[in-house]
Parts: sequence; C-alpha cells; structure tokens
Amino acid sequence: MTAPNRATLWGRVLVDELAKGGLEAVCIAPGSRSTPLTVAFAEHPDVAVYSHLDERSASYFALGRARRTGEPTALVCTSGTAAANFHPAVIEANQARVPLLVLTADRPPELRDSGANQTIEQRGLYGDALRCEADLPEPEADERKVRSLRTTAARALAETTGNPPGPVHLNCPFRKPLEPIAVPDDVPDAFADTLAGRGREGAFVDTNSGRPRLDDDELDPVLDALTGADRPLIVAGPADPADLGDLDSGAVTELASRLGAPVLADPLSGLRFGPHVDDGPIVGGYDGYIDAMASPDVVLRVGASPTSKPLRRALADSNATQFLIDPAGEWREATFTATDLLAATPGSVVETLLDRLERDDVVTDAQPRLTTDGDWLDGFRRAENRHWERRDDALETDALRADPFEGAVLASVFEDAPDPATIFVSNSMPIRDADRFGRPRTADLTVLANRGASGIDGITSTALGAGSTVDDPLVLVTGDLAFYHDSNGLLAIDRCGVDATIVLLDNDGGGIFHKLPIEDFEPPFTDQFKTPHGLAFDALGDLYDVAFERVDPADFDAAYRRSLAADGTQVLAVEFDAEASHRRREAIRGSVLEAVAADRTGESGS
Amino acid sequence: MTAPNRATLWGRVLVDELAKGGLEAVCIAPGSRSTPLTVAFAEHPDVAVYSHLDERSASYFALGRARRTGEPTALVCTSGTAAANFHPAVIEANQARVPLLVLTADRPPELRDSGANQTIEQRGLYGDALRCEADLPEPEADERKVRSLRTTAARALAETTGNPPGPVHLNCPFRKPLEPIAVPDDVPDAFADTLAGRGREGAFVDTNSGRPRLDDDELDPVLDALTGADRPLIVAGPADPADLGDLDSGAVTELASRLGAPVLADPLSGLRFGPHVDDGPIVGGYDGYIDAMASPDVVLRVGASPTSKPLRRALADSNATQFLIDPAGEWREATFTATDLLAATPGSVVETLLDRLERDDVVTDAQPRLTTDGDWLDGFRRAENRHWERRDDALETDALRADPFEGAVLASVFEDAPDPATIFVSNSMPIRDADRFGRPRTADLTVLANRGASGIDGITSTALGAGSTVDDPLVLVTGDLAFYHDSNGLLAIDRCGVDATIVLLDNDGGGIFHKLPIEDFEPPFTDQFKTPHGLAFDALGDLYDVAFERVDPADFDAAYRRSLAADGTQVLAVEFDAEASHRRREAIRGSVLEAVAADRTGESGS
Repeated sequence: MTAPNRATLWGRVLVDELAKGGLEAVCIAPGSRSTPLTVAFAEHPDVAVYSHLDERSASYFALGRARRTGEPTALVCTSGTAAANFHPAVIEANQARVPLLVLTADRPPELRDSGANQTIEQRGLYGDALRCEADLPEPEADERKVRSLRTTAARALAETTGNPPGPVHLNCPFRKPLEPIAVPDDVPDAFADTLAGRGREGAFVDTNSGRPRLDDDELDPVLDALTGADRPLIVAGPADPADLGDLDSGAVTELASRLGAPVLADPLSGLRFGPHVDDGPIVGGYDGYIDAMASPDVVLRVGASPTSKPLRRALADSNATQFLIDPAGEWREATFTATDLLAATPGSVVETLLDRLERDDVVTDAQPRLTTDGDWLDGFRRAENRHWERRDDALETDALRADPFEGAVLASVFEDAPDPATIFVSNSMPIRDADRFGRPRTADLTVLANRGASGIDGITSTALGAGSTVDDPLVLVTGDLAFYHDSNGLLAIDRCGVDATIVLLDNDGGGIFHKLPIEDFEPPFTDQFKTPHGLAFDALGDLYDVAFERVDPADFDAAYRRSLAADGTQVLAVEFDAEASHRRREAIRGSVLEAVAADRTGESGS
Repeated sequence: MTAPNRATLWGRVLVDELAKGGLEAVCIAPGSRSTPLTVAFAEHPDVAVYSHLDERSASYFALGRARRTGEPTALVCTSGTAAANFHPAVIEANQARVPLLVLTADRPPELRDSGANQTIEQRGLYGDALRCEADLPEPEADERKVRSLRTTAARALAETTGNPPGPVHLNCPFRKPLEPIAVPDDVPDAFADTLAGRGREGAFVDTNSGRPRLDDDELDPVLDALTGADRPLIVAGPADPADLGDLDSGAVTELASRLGAPVLADPLSGLRFGPHVDDGPIVGGYDGYIDAMASPDVVLRVGASPTSKPLRRALADSNATQFLIDPAGEWREATFTATDLLAATPGSVVETLLDRLERDDVVTDAQPRLTTDGDWLDGFRRAENRHWERRDDALETDALRADPFEGAVLASVFEDAPDPATIFVSNSMPIRDADRFGRPRTADLTVLANRGASGIDGITSTALGAGSTVDDPLVLVTGDLAFYHDSNGLLAIDRCGVDATIVLLDNDGGGIFHKLPIEDFEPPFTDQFKTPHGLAFDALGDLYDVAFERVDPADFDAAYRRSLAADGTQVLAVEFDAEASHRRREAIRGSVLEAVAADRTGESGS
C-alpha cells in the first residue's frame, strides 16, 4: 500500500482492511473532511459506493441493506452535525441488531472545544447504542500505528456481526491535505514493503467467534415442559435474517407438529412465509382471534417481542412457563412474564429438541398427550380459518367498494406478491395491518420493518437499501406521514438504481391516533395528533422522476400487479379515511372473535 | 391545578410552570407517548404551538425562533428515534448558545432495556451538548414530587438562558392513560389547594444570575495595550442576538473611533449592519483584502471565530496581543493565537474601556499616537472602498450577463433588503459570499446562520423559525444541497404561517468543492464530491403550495424586489455554474488585492 500523503494512506489502509474483511458496500454523503475515506472507497474495486446527499437517508439506506443481507454496511460522513444525522439509524441498528459500520471524519483533536468551524464532540456521539467505538489516532506512516489501524478496522468490522450484531463507530480525525496530493517524505517509499504497509493476504486479524449452544441435558427441563404441556405454543417474534442465524424453518414446523404446538409467526419472524408453511402448524391471524383462545401453559419464544398487542397481552395474562431463546442472552420481553432465558442460538435449541424427540422415548411419552389434546392445535387451525374467511369476505370487490379499509391493501400486498419478493412495511398502522391481514403463504417473502425502535423515520430509505442488494422485487408499504418524513430518501431510486413498488396509504395524517383514546378529545385531536397536511404527493413523483399513480382502493389489486410487472419504480397512492378504516378493522375483528368463540362453545358443548 | 389523572396533571403543571417562567412557544411533533405534554401545551393560552411532522425540521424551526428572539423555545416529541432526530439541532444550539428546551416523552422506566416497543435509552441521548438534563420521576399527585416538578421546570427554563445560553433536556416518562381520561382517586380534589397543586403567582422558583464583569483596574492592561498600539483592531465574530447581550453597537464604534481601530464586522456579528455603521470604523470587505494589509499589533475580539478564513489566517499570523471577550469564559479561538481571555460581557468591557478613555488622561496620552498613525484606520477605509468598487463593477448588468456569479446575488440580497429585515444565510458558499460581498449598511438587518456547527442540515427550518416570530420580512439564501436536505422544512410555510423570500442558489451539487484541491481529482470529484443531482425543485413549489420562479442571474434584483413587496412565500431559483462562480470570485479578489497593494505601495512611496 502506497500513498502520496499520510491521510490518503490512512484512508486506503482502512478501506483495504475492511474490504479484506468482507465489507461490500458503503453509503457516502459528500463532505470535505471525509475526503481520504471517500477517495479510498471510490477507488476500491470491491466495495460498492452509494452516494447520498442527506445523511439521515444515507444511514437508513445502509441500515436497510445490512438488514436485508445480514452483512455489514459502512457509512461515511464529514465532521459536525452530519454525524448526528446518523443517530436515529444507529439506534435502530442497535435495537434491531443490524451490522452497521459508522465512519465519521473528524477534525484534528486539538480543534475540539476550540470554537473551530464544523467541529463538535464526536466521541460518544451515539451514546451506548453501539457494540463498540474507537477514536482513531492521527494518520501517520508509522508501522505500529498502521498495524493498529488494520487491527482496529478488522476488529470493528467483526464486531458488527458479533453476538449480537449491531453498529460500531470509528471516529477518524484527519488533517490537511485531505486530497491525494503529494507531500514529500510523508509516506516513505519503503513503507509499502513493511507488514503494516503491505497488510496480509486476507484480513489482518480474524475474529473467530463461537455461537452459544446449550448441552442436551441443559435442555431437559425445556423438553420436559414442552412434552408435558397441554397447550404448548411456539411464538416467533420479529427477527431479522441476520438475527435468525441458524434457525431452519422446516425444523421449527417439524418440532411444532410433533409437539402439537401452533407456531404464532409474526410477519417479521421469517416464519410466516416460505415453503415450510404448507399444511404446517404456522398460524398468522392470531392478532384477530387470540383473545378468544384458551391460554397456553408452556411457550417457546424466539425473536423479539411480537408485533401483535393482543398476543403480548395474552402471553402476559397466561401464567405459562415461557422459554425465551435469545442467542445474545438478552431479555427482550417487555411483559415480564417469560420464566426462562435460553441464551443459545434458536437453531441449536430447536435442533437439539427435535433430535431428542426423535431419538429418545420422550416421543412415545408425549404421543398419548398429543392425541388427547390434539384439539389444541386444531382449535388454532379452525380459528385461523375463521379469521381468513372473514378477511376474504371483506376483500370482496363489492365489500371493498362499500367499505374500503387499509387492511385490504396489506392483504393484497402479501397475497399477490411474487415469489420471491422483499416486502418492507412501515411502522404505525401498516405493520399492524400486515400482522392481522397478511396471510401465511408458501412463497419466499422476506418481510422487513424497522421494528427495533419502531420509528416512522427513514422508512423509504431503509426499504430502498434493502432492495438495492437483491434481485427480488421490492415492495414498500408506507403511510403518508412516514412517506413525508423520509421524502428525501426517494432520491436513491434514481441515484442508487433501485426499482420498487411503493404502496402509499394516504389517510392525510396520523391514522393510528384513531385507535387511541385521544380521538375523543377535540381539540387538540385534529391539530396536534391527527395533523392533516393535505400534501399532494404527486409532486414528489415529478421531483424524483418516479411514476405516481392514484389508485382507488377497490382497484388496488390490478394496479399492484401492473406495477410488479413493470420496470422502474411506481408509487401507488391509495387514499383512505383513517377513521373508517379503523372502524372496519374493528368490525372484522369483532366478527372473527364472535365466530371463534361460537366454534369453541360448540366444541366444548359437543 | 386540577386534572383527571396523574399524567394530565404532570403535563399541566410542567407547562404551567414553563409559561410562568416566560416560555412563549413550543414546536410539537405528533406522537402518543407525549400526549400529556401536547394536551397541556395545546390548552395553555400563553404558549404558541407550532405543529411539525418531521422532528428534525421541528427542532431546527425551534432553534431558529430561539436564535432570532434570544428567548427559549420548547420542543416536544414522542419516545424512540423521534428524539434522536433532534440531535443535530441540539448540537447547533449548544455550540451557538441558543436557548432550547427539549422535552422528550418516554415510556415508564421499567421498560428500558426490556425490548419494549418504541423504547430506547433517552437519558444521555444528547451527550454533553447540553447545559443540563434531568430524567423526571414518574407522574404522581404527590406534593413533594409536584413541587420538585415545578422547581425542575423553572430551573431548566432558566438554564436555557444562563451563561452561556443553550439546550436543556428533560426526559419525561409517562404511563397510560396518557389522555385526559378520568381515573378515580388518581388526583385527589384537595390536591388543587396545596402549594404544589396551586403553584405560585409567578414562577415557582426564580433564578437570578449575575453576568460577569471585570473591574476597572482589571481592564487596565487592556486599555494600556489598546491605547499604546500602533495598529489596533477590533474583530467582531459571529454572535447571536442572545449572545451579544448588552453590547451597544454605538459604544463599539465610539470606542473604535477613539482608538483609531477598524472594526472588522462579520456579517453574523450584529455589527455589520445598523445605524451605527454610518461613517464609522465598521468595515465589511476584509475577506477580500486582509491579505494585503499590515498585521495588527493589538486585537480586541468579541463573538465566535470569524467566518472569514483569510481573517482567521491573518490573526494567526499576526503575533499580536489578542484579547478575547467571552461572557461564558470559553476560548472559542481555533487559531490558538489569542493571548488573553476576558471572561466578562462584551458590553461591560466596551463600556468600561470607553468610560476610562473619556474620564482619564489616557485620551490625551493616546491622541498623539492616533494622529501619527491615523493612516492605519484610513488604510482600511481605502481598502474597503477598493473592495466595494471592484464588487460594484462586477455587479453591472453587462458584467453580470457576461460573468454571472453567486456573490452578485448575495450582494443584492443585502443591498436591497428592506429596513428592517431578517436575513438567514446557509452554510457552505452562501455565508462565505455574504461575508465577502455583503456591504455594511445603516439598515437594521438581523443576519443569522447556523454557524455553531456549520452544518447544511435544517437550514430552511431554522430560517422559517426565525421568521415566525417577528414582523420583519424574512429572506433565506440557501444552496441546492441545503435546500434538498431540509425540503421537509417547507411544510412550515403554510402550517406555521411564515412568509419568506427564499433565494435558492442552484448550482446542482456541492459548489464549495470547487474551492478545494479535490476538484483536480476526477474521479471521484463529480460522483462523490460535486454530486450533481439534477433535481427540478419546481416540484417542491407544487408540493408545498409555494410560488416558485426561475430567475436569470442578471434579473435577480428585480425579482427580489418584487418578492419582497409581495405577500406569501416565493422561491427565487437562480442557476449558476459553480466552477465559473468560483473563478469569478477569485478574479474579483485578485483585482482587489492588487489595487489595495498598489495603494499601499503608493502611500509608503509618497
């Protein structure tokens, strides 16, 4: 590695090491102080560079890419408030365990607290929302320093995919010249021949991290509880592809079938969609009917806290033994009813349990129980059928024309999505409607949302980032507030070459507030909560050169299929009355609950 | 104070206390967890509520209002990443000493680190960019708790305008019900009659902070140095209205005149424009010619580090005795050449020095020196004339048609601005052009920029916030990258009822990079630094219902005057070639330097 000056050398070594460690993409916002990093990334053949103009959108785009692939994505910005614009995405990456490597250029250390221009305290900028952080020393063609740079870079990258994965921050001070201008004697010719200058064939240092497993006998209590349960349940909460790690969907359904346990699969669990769904114990409509079901007595949980509030409430009220599997050993369980934490990879736990069921006589022990209580799983299947039946009634064209509601769009988005596809769903109402109306399918749908901190910021950018890296068609479902919030993110469509179908549920403000008691307080309901804005988003289509189409709710299916078949990005804007949508949602839920309760009364009466 | 439940009580008491302490405005982004705060603000008759949909824009809007008025402005958001979106503006407020009170709603403390939805670590979210922060206890109608709430609120508000002013963060956990729903026995009727419930007539506690002054004899060395100087200089760097405090412009010019010292007045100093400019020692063109002047030997500095890099360099190279006046006692001086810090208010220092000059015999001591070296101030006046003469040549219509350049727009913006007016200037090139081409005038122009951390984020919102509160016409001068970055901020034009003239200098990317050596490295210059985007911003006019006009550089004056005379907001977009603009800027500077050098040779030769 050679360079015309120390800053250029520093940038090149850092990028060289990251690329050797497997980094494949970086999002860069333009700036002067970051020149050595930008130049090094731009000239590296193995790292894709995505150029963004708004750091907030850049960081969410990087988050989306990392989220979709499970691979670390880097971010580069100049010094000052630019770096603070990354903060929301860093928080999301922390809570959702997404591998993000944040590289902030900084001015030289003597300028800190000196009143110098564009100089802020960048150390500690992201608080504790990081796996680790380092403030790099000043660039110099010094062997030990450069070896330390290589080591730090390689280790930082490894930390992003550690246990758990997450964001890492390297603060990088540079002094002028920042450009690749020759500075005599700054980098001696002989430096290229040193170990520091050359680096190694692969990464300078490799981090080999084991993943936690529990021994067979450590899982005995779990096996005993599950096989001895009358009403065992498997709950799969939101989990990113990176987070699921070694979990095999087929093994989960196999285990569930043997236990007679329904798998309540969050739309973000990676388990609601896929070939394993066929005839298996996967259920998806529980948000609509769980209130009418009996309580489970033993629960096995993977992933984060479920999206469904009725499910969370049912778990909290259940008094069940609840095993929470988390490879990082964190209690991500806000109802405080889980009883046992299994700090191991979900895959290893499921595999071991399955092994034991097949190998040991527990199978036969369990068998009678499964037979007598087979009704438990069947009960869920019946409830599930009721739920989708009622939903389908509401989706009939005539019903839709009379009573359009946002959930119908979410239903179609999942039902008609091509196989495979990546579907990104905004927080607030879209994810709730996806949860309730997105029916399990055998199609390979990767469903993502920013469910770590559940903000409505950065939604468009995260989706486009997720879509930038795979050949799957990309669908984004967003509300109007989230769409406005990250309107800058649309620039990436053209700039980063992403094709998407953007479904915009436009109810002119915060539809979710109709779900809350504040709806009854007017004022301030309309002005401060619902906050209608009247924005004619068509203009954003003009600004970002994207096809923008207003679609009638009853015609959504056709428009959606057209867009999926078409090249380029289309925004399909569907207008709704948030209040009417909410009433309709509640009505369907009421009718499902009633039917499920009637079924159960019928059963117990028979 | 009474309330249907403890959360509502808590919100009402907090807002009651802030209003009694003088808080007049709050910017609120919609959210559920913040309901008690939002409801209390909305129902309070004395606090103006500005509703925003993007927290980043909201926070910059609040910053702008606080910056323009010097009065604290509050911010409210819900829990989660919403709060992190405030971070860039909080950093700017910290570095620019702008009074901002950040109220973040939070979920109850037991949910921290539990994996609960929309729950992040909000304590310490803004690092050390705060005057102080507090994590409020949980709401309860308990007398001591509510007295503590009143005290905390009053003290927090006082801290925002302390020494120095700046941001304060109150994190406010709430549990359900968040809405003003009756909860029996939650707030006993008798609570309203307690001191905690009633509060006091005014603020619950008053903070009376003295401002630092130096005694007369402590300023003797300063007086001696200034009166004994051959080439005394007063440098007024960027200082917000709030920051200037007690400094009287007339007193500064009076002092400078007596000392024979030119006042190099930054466009953001509050001293370049105003009635005191008339025939006084205020100079404004120094960025163009300081390189050709002799070095000062004694410098008196107020405000932050000057915008002008040539001036900063000249000060660094001067070896002068440099007195830095800063009421907060901070060394905001990144050239590290200041020799003495005067931790006192600039007004008190100037007043004392002036007093002593008038009262003591130092006047007569100084007089002969002033006579012999009167040339020093005259030299600046001559240079100043050269500078504006050359600028005016470049502004001739024919010259402009042949060689349009961005600086011409900045020249006109200041020259033709009504009296009074508020002019907000973006970072990057606009502020540099304002510095070089904005000629001192007697008009009462309040010139503002986000010069604390010098980001290009939040520019539009900050300007609109500044314009929301005074009757002055508002002018914003911004570049295309900054305009894109905060395009969401345009929503406030209609929503918060702000009228502005927005001058958009559109050179399709980062024009400032043409000033830097990276210009010579292609690639990556165009793709990663200049970053042309080709955005047709007209569409933003449609989206936000704002008049959008493309203006030829040579016709800018007329369009500008029309817009100033018209109601509503107009965007005047003027397209430039950044590179040509930069060459033209350099050519004018070259010609000024040459003329000034020739004048000085002529003088010394005569």
